[in-house]
Amino acid sequence: MSQQERGRAPEPSNVNPSKATGVVEEIEVRGHIVDSLLLPKILDRILLMGGTFEIRECKIGVRRTDPSYARVAIRADDHETLKAILGDLVEHGASPVHPEDAAMVSADIAGAFPEGFYSTTSQPTQVRLNGRWIEVDDQEMDCGIVVDRLAGKARCIPMCHVEIGMPIVVGHAGVRVLPIERPREVGIFGFMGSTVSSEKPKSISVRSVVEAIRTTRAEGKKVLLVVGPAIVHTGSAGHVARLIKAGLVQVLFAGNALATHDIEQALFGTSLGVSLTHGEPIEHGHEHHLRAINAIRRLGGIAGAVERGVLTSGIMYESVKSGIEVVLAGSIRDDGPLPEVITDTLVAQDRMRQAIRGVGLALLIATALHSIATGNLLPGWVKVVCVDINPATITKLSDRGTFQTIGLVTDVEPFLRSLAAELTAEPG
Amino acid sequence: MSQQERGRAPEPSNVNPSKATGVVEEIEVRGHIVDSLLLPKILDRILLMGGTFEIRECKIGVRRTDPSYARVAIRADDHETLKAILGDLVEHGASPVHPEDAAMVSADIAGAFPEGFYSTTSQPTQVRLNGRWIEVDDQEMDCGIVVDRLAGKARCIPMCHVEIGMPIVVGHAGVRVLPIERPREVGIFGFMGSTVSSEKPKSISVRSVVEAIRTTRAEGKKVLLVVGPAIVHTGSAGHVARLIKAGLVQVLFAGNALATHDIEQALFGTSLGVSLTHGEPIEHGHEHHLRAINAIRRLGGIAGAVERGVLTSGIMYESVKSGIEVVLAGSIRDDGPLPEVITDTLVAQDRMRQAIRGVGLALLIATALHSIATGNLLPGWVKVVCVDINPATITKLSDRGTFQTIGLVTDVEPFLRSLAAELTAEPG
Amino acid sequence: MSQQERGRAPEPSNVNPSKATGVVEEIEVRGHIVDSLLLPKILDRILLMGGTFEIRECKIGVRRTDPSYARVAIRADDHETLKAILGDLVEHGASPVHPEDAAMVSADIAGAFPEGFYSTTSQPTQVRLNGRWIEVDDQEMDCGIVVDRLAGKARCIPMCHVEIGMPIVVGHAGVRVLPIERPREVGIFGFMGSTVSSEKPKSISVRSVVEAIRTTRAEGKKVLLVVGPAIVHTGSAGHVARLIKAGLVQVLFAGNALATHDIEQALFGTSLGVSLTHGEPIEHGHEHHLRAINAIRRLGGIAGAVERGVLTSGIMYESVKSGIEVVLAGSIRDDGPLPEVITDTLVAQDRMRQAIRGVGLALLIATALHSIATGNLLPGWVKVVCVDINPATITKLSDRGTFQTIGLVTDVEPFLRSLAAELTAEPG
Amino acid sequence: MSQQERGRAPEPSNVNPSKATGVVEEIEVRGHIVDSLLLPKILDRILLMGGTFEIRECKIGVRRTDPSYARVAIRADDHETLKAILGDLVEHGASPVHPEDAAMVSADIAGAFPEGFYSTTSQPTQVRLNGRWIEVDDQEMDCGIVVDRLAGKARCIPMCHVEIGMPIVVGHAGVRVLPIERPREVGIFGFMGSTVSSEKPKSISVRSVVEAIRTTRAEGKKVLLVVGPAIVHTGSAGHVARLIKAGLVQVLFAGNALATHDIEQALFGTSLGVSLTHGEPIEHGHEHHLRAINAIRRLGGIAGAVERGVLTSGIMYESVKSGIEVVLAGSIRDDGPLPEVITDTLVAQDRMRQAIRGVGLALLIATALHSIATGNLLPGWVKVVCVDINPATITKLSDRGTFQTIGLVTDVEPFLRSLAAELTAEPG
Repeated sequence: MSQQERGRAPEPSNVNPSKATGVVEEIEVRGHIVDSLLLPKILDRILLMGGTFEIRECKIGVRRTDPSYARVAIRADDHETLKAILGDLVEHGASPVHPEDAAMVSADIAGAFPEGFYSTTSQPTQVRLNGRWIEVDDQEMDCGIVVDRLAGKARCIPMCHVEIGMPIVVGHAGVRVLPIERPREVGIFGFMGSTVSSEKPKSISVRSVVEAIRTTRAEGKKVLLVVGPAIVHTGSAGHVARLIKAGLVQVLFAGNALATHDIEQALFGTSLGVSLTHGEPIEHGHEHHLRAINAIRRLGGIAGAVERGVLTSGIMYESVKSGIEVVLAGSIRDDGPLPEVITDTLVAQDRMRQAIRGVGLALLIATALHSIATGNLLPGWVKVVCVDINPATITKLSDRGTFQTIGLVTDVEPFLRSLAAELTAEPG
Repeated sequence: MSQQERGRAPEPSNVNPSKATGVVEEIEVRGHIVDSLLLPKILDRILLMGGTFEIRECKIGVRRTDPSYARVAIRADDHETLKAILGDLVEHGASPVHPEDAAMVSADIAGAFPEGFYSTTSQPTQVRLNGRWIEVDDQEMDCGIVVDRLAGKARCIPMCHVEIGMPIVVGHAGVRVLPIERPREVGIFGFMGSTVSSEKPKSISVRSVVEAIRTTRAEGKKVLLVVGPAIVHTGSAGHVARLIKAGLVQVLFAGNALATHDIEQALFGTSLGVSLTHGEPIEHGHEHHLRAINAIRRLGGIAGAVERGVLTSGIMYESVKSGIEVVLAGSIRDDGPLPEVITDTLVAQDRMRQAIRGVGLALLIATALHSIATGNLLPGWVKVVCVDINPATITKLSDRGTFQTIGLVTDVEPFLRSLAAELTAEPG
Repeated sequence: MSQQERGRAPEPSNVNPSKATGVVEEIEVRGHIVDSLLLPKILDRILLMGGTFEIRECKIGVRRTDPSYARVAIRADDHETLKAILGDLVEHGASPVHPEDAAMVSADIAGAFPEGFYSTTSQPTQVRLNGRWIEVDDQEMDCGIVVDRLAGKARCIPMCHVEIGMPIVVGHAGVRVLPIERPREVGIFGFMGSTVSSEKPKSISVRSVVEAIRTTRAEGKKVLLVVGPAIVHTGSAGHVARLIKAGLVQVLFAGNALATHDIEQALFGTSLGVSLTHGEPIEHGHEHHLRAINAIRRLGGIAGAVERGVLTSGIMYESVKSGIEVVLAGSIRDDGPLPEVITDTLVAQDRMRQAIRGVGLALLIATALHSIATGNLLPGWVKVVCVDINPATITKLSDRGTFQTIGLVTDVEPFLRSLAAELTAEPG
Repeated sequence: MSQQERGRAPEPSNVNPSKATGVVEEIEVRGHIVDSLLLPKILDRILLMGGTFEIRECKIGVRRTDPSYARVAIRADDHETLKAILGDLVEHGASPVHPEDAAMVSADIAGAFPEGFYSTTSQPTQVRLNGRWIEVDDQEMDCGIVVDRLAGKARCIPMCHVEIGMPIVVGHAGVRVLPIERPREVGIFGFMGSTVSSEKPKSISVRSVVEAIRTTRAEGKKVLLVVGPAIVHTGSAGHVARLIKAGLVQVLFAGNALATHDIEQALFGTSLGVSLTHGEPIEHGHEHHLRAINAIRRLGGIAGAVERGVLTSGIMYESVKSGIEVVLAGSIRDDGPLPEVITDTLVAQDRMRQAIRGVGLALLIATALHSIATGNLLPGWVKVVCVDINPATITKLSDRGTFQTIGLVTDVEPFLRSLAAELTAEPG
């Protein structure tokens, strides 16, 4: 929406004249600073950390969706305090009015950052090189930033990938974080953000996710599905398979257990030995998952089993058939494992990192391990829906705390059934 | 299934000849004693409580469904111990081979039992009067048994209903409990009894309950629905209303909150102020439930609001229209309350006691208070399905521990949606 | 803390000159409007509801604890919209700069409010009578306000207490809500407000509650304890008894089950039949609670049992001995009940209303029913600590959403053990 | 306890003479077959799977702790059915009276079992070689059994370790499982087995675990501690460190997160950035864990950090100092990771396999991933205590369903505090 006229600049201030000594620096904030509660948060941080402030300029958008702008002078007793405040505010989305270039130190040890490295968030970040703000690529939280001076580029780098000599950003100077705005859509990501409660209108939740998938696909972005084995135990593998077959999922993250029980169901009709048509434990059924893994290992892998016509249904079958990107990451719980499972966790992380490029929506369903791992890697602007019957799983994940993550406390089987039904229905 | 040939009697024994002094009494057990693990439980209790036993007769049915019979001699060092053992075994379904008549003492205080009163269970119970075993009516746990000597009848009586002079059964002599057998249906009540887990095949659960409702109705028994306000918050009121309209529910237990939010939805489209079509809190929506109560109070009650055409949809509307039995029991959480709510809890209990007569299946959904209250009143042979997204609610209820209670950890909205869809579908 | 110098007034505005038609009214907000995020919330509401605003005056306190002031002009297209906005903002703590007197309508029906009644919140509220702002007494949410014109007084009144002819406030005009500020104590109510998570430093939680109890007592206010029967099952009755004996609890709310199992423990050493010294179910133990109730009923009540030396330990014993105020409220789950239990829920609510006067701190432990009932009655400025091992209980309660409620997801037994140990320790 | 006189042999039977055709084979069961409900379970299985039985001999111990013996003839219509029944019963602890030798097939593919391989349980197992029953070493569930014909030995082997040519046991013939008996201790593992509930006497739980640790150490067996990062978040790292320092833990399994936050606390006083002395988030605290990992990586590892005096307290410090066995297993959630973390999950599993030798008691605390992984590897006779505030974690683990696993639903911090206090108290 185009921006129109603005009001006059406000001039509030709490700079106590009698204290008007010390050091001063100006910061600015842009965006939906009223709606996002950004400005009061920043003012509050300044006071909390021992500074005072003066609002030098403040333009507030006419409509709720109009961006705003504020320029605030921060005063502190000494340089140390001022620097600490500025470093803190950078992560809350403020940036100095007169910024310096980012400082860099060459890595002296492989696989470790230099002392004082800048630690990244999942929010969009820029570094200042030669007076220009450069976007940081591969945004990921809990990384460092490595700079390619010649190309004038910067990217996030995990600690274990650092090589000796790489220029790594240190300190907060010359770094700015661009806060993500709260989504404004009504009915989609609008209503569910607040508390982690099971007592919310459920069919609206499903419709919201249907809408989010459609929007993501319409924007040409990928849908990432991250699923745990309870998917199969609850009888939902067919629903997921249907979504994949319909081309609604581009990337699938899971572990050995999900793949194993999916294949167990395809080969034996059971999950962990429980019949998925009768609901009762089958004799010797508890061996089925091991026999399933063994059968696949004997055939050289899941793809081999599909080729030879041994595996003819389920999530893994549809994934192979449709050629979507699948990362099966290993864990110490695994039996077997299936040949496609990546047993080294660092290798698996790198494969996941590559696979999330282009993802616009991530559905994390019934898995704590893979959900948190995925959450660690995703940039903050990817929409995330976390679905689990256990509110604790969602609480853990949403402690990451971006605006873009919503949690649904619901039973995954009916959720996925409705999702598949609504998304794969034949047009009448 | 008819019973066929039986094997010979077994004669195991652990009576230590060197200990063959003391007192002896014979008990017998009937029923599916192998399948139900009844016999070993009884032998274990005897040993645990300091007795020894000798199996004097044991006939085991040829087929899994055939009843069996065992006669066991119990020996203890003294009469006290033997009496304690016998009292204990009575509640596990054993009965003395040579029983006495039940002993009675006249109530000396209104609203209290005499000392030593027999405390009832929810299992089918008989008392022996003049040498004959009489069925106890109004079976209910945590009651006493009052006897009508003239009519040769006995019934359970809650403590608060005791009047001075009533003959109340004391001690365990002359009382026997008939154990309820484990249900044998495959796929209905067969598979879900074990653990309280969310990781079970969900569509089978729904089908099982559909089947149980149909069976109950086909047997001419009533279906009791016990529901909490989360029904409305999750958007399930319409599903429940549909079930009632279709004649699938004969008795409804709920509280002021369920009725209030159901009416709030009918009048304002919200539940606790949250829009059930958009999922968002409505301005001033938090007042809606109070305005709903006030509106109904101004019209003299729910029935009045239906009559005058003010209330035209929802659970309460369909209940009034179809004339099913409704008990709205009050609690200290209530606002208002609605005029139909019974604010005295003892009066409410009595109304519930009357209403459960003829109930063959009880569905307890998304309420701890009303579920436990109902569970306290139901005889043990009524099938109970408890549905909640929170496993702790089910654990609490199933600690009552009958074979007939199954717990489903699932989201109530899709559960009720599927139930309503399957049960009210038009025949093709 | 005394307030010092203020900065100059800011003059932001988003009033679009081209839209400068329609109707305008000024509101003002006072208090920690930056820290409490009050101002941006109010500006956001205005835009959301279709209005525009102009900040006419804004003084921000120098220190974090200094109060601030803002005066904002609201413009809307028509009177309806403007009135809706004003009504909404009143509940968010804003008040018109040029207020009217409150409007009243006489109640035309007993037990119901007139149409359009003002529905109360738990926040401090004032009504304007003859040009003067009068404090509303007996603050309680979900009530109406009845005015005594002669005495110049107003108080909250529950719907069921309305009598014909009472003047009841209608509409939002002449009503203002004074927002409660976020507590600033570090380490007490400071750190735990946010998410309902079990993964927080636990010994700090205990220390915070110890501190809160001491502060409350030092301020001469009452401590209210609201407890459920799990207190006894987990072996915590002794800890609670110790707190009562030490004079740390002035008011106790509970139900029949808590009192019954407490007395069961005192008389039989079990809770629900489980030995609290060995942890194992006792033979016939499941009858103990009923025998306990019966024994007390035979003696005419708990007080009688204490007098005659039958009941000599536990929560109820110490409550009788120390003469604290106890409200035992009935529910439909109750066996018996004990004679002191108030079976009519409206009578129980009234007793609870009286008993909360003077309460400064409420500890709600291991009970959903009584906690929510208490939360409904408490004014918003009473500090509330809700302790439960199940996060869902806390989520339900904290959906009320005041700053003063903190939730601790922890096991109640070690929590109460530590609390009793720290509070009743002998000075060395 | 010595076994004394036995009663006479019982001769029950349900073999229908009219059906006395088909094939027959005798099995025997030994142990606490009454107490453990073993016999009725076996009879039930036979009937369920389409066979009939005749009890040919049955000796029942005089005392509750005396072992018993039963010999049962099984009749089925055909060899297939009989074989299926026998295979099933073997896993329930029965064994054929006239057993065959185990059958073996040479592995034809590396990393996979031959078709029809015997799939192991966690129960003590024997295979029959040349007419002699040989104990299977390295007992572990979901493995195969590889035989060393020359040495006359057999052991469990995970699928991925199979080499071409290894003789692998196939089918159920010649394999027998020795059922583990239900523990009889009162107060230790006696009372808590049943339901997963938070409403149990808590101080008894602690005392029981204290007792179990003491017993395990007195028997010369190792105590294994498996812990997740919530240990540190809740402020329990000090308690665990104290247990390790006191020599009460011999083996520690954890992941990168536990070690990282433990070191974060040692270096910065925070866990995930939250102060463990004040309970409040520290500025930039969310970076602390990454800075902690980086610091350790710069020093070459945890051991290096201890050597150089950088790391001087906490769980990892005490582990290095006392030289206990530590396995830090990697997962895809990990940042860094710390140099000691094993990133390949198969390598980590092998390290865990070696480390559990000699373990008599395993405490699994506040971790689902590591607990389930450990549970997969432990033989069934190791006592397991699983402690978590979330009942779902315990339900998942106890679905493994051995008698030796007990679950405590409690808050880990006070649990570990009490454990450390009771176990490391100075003798008076």
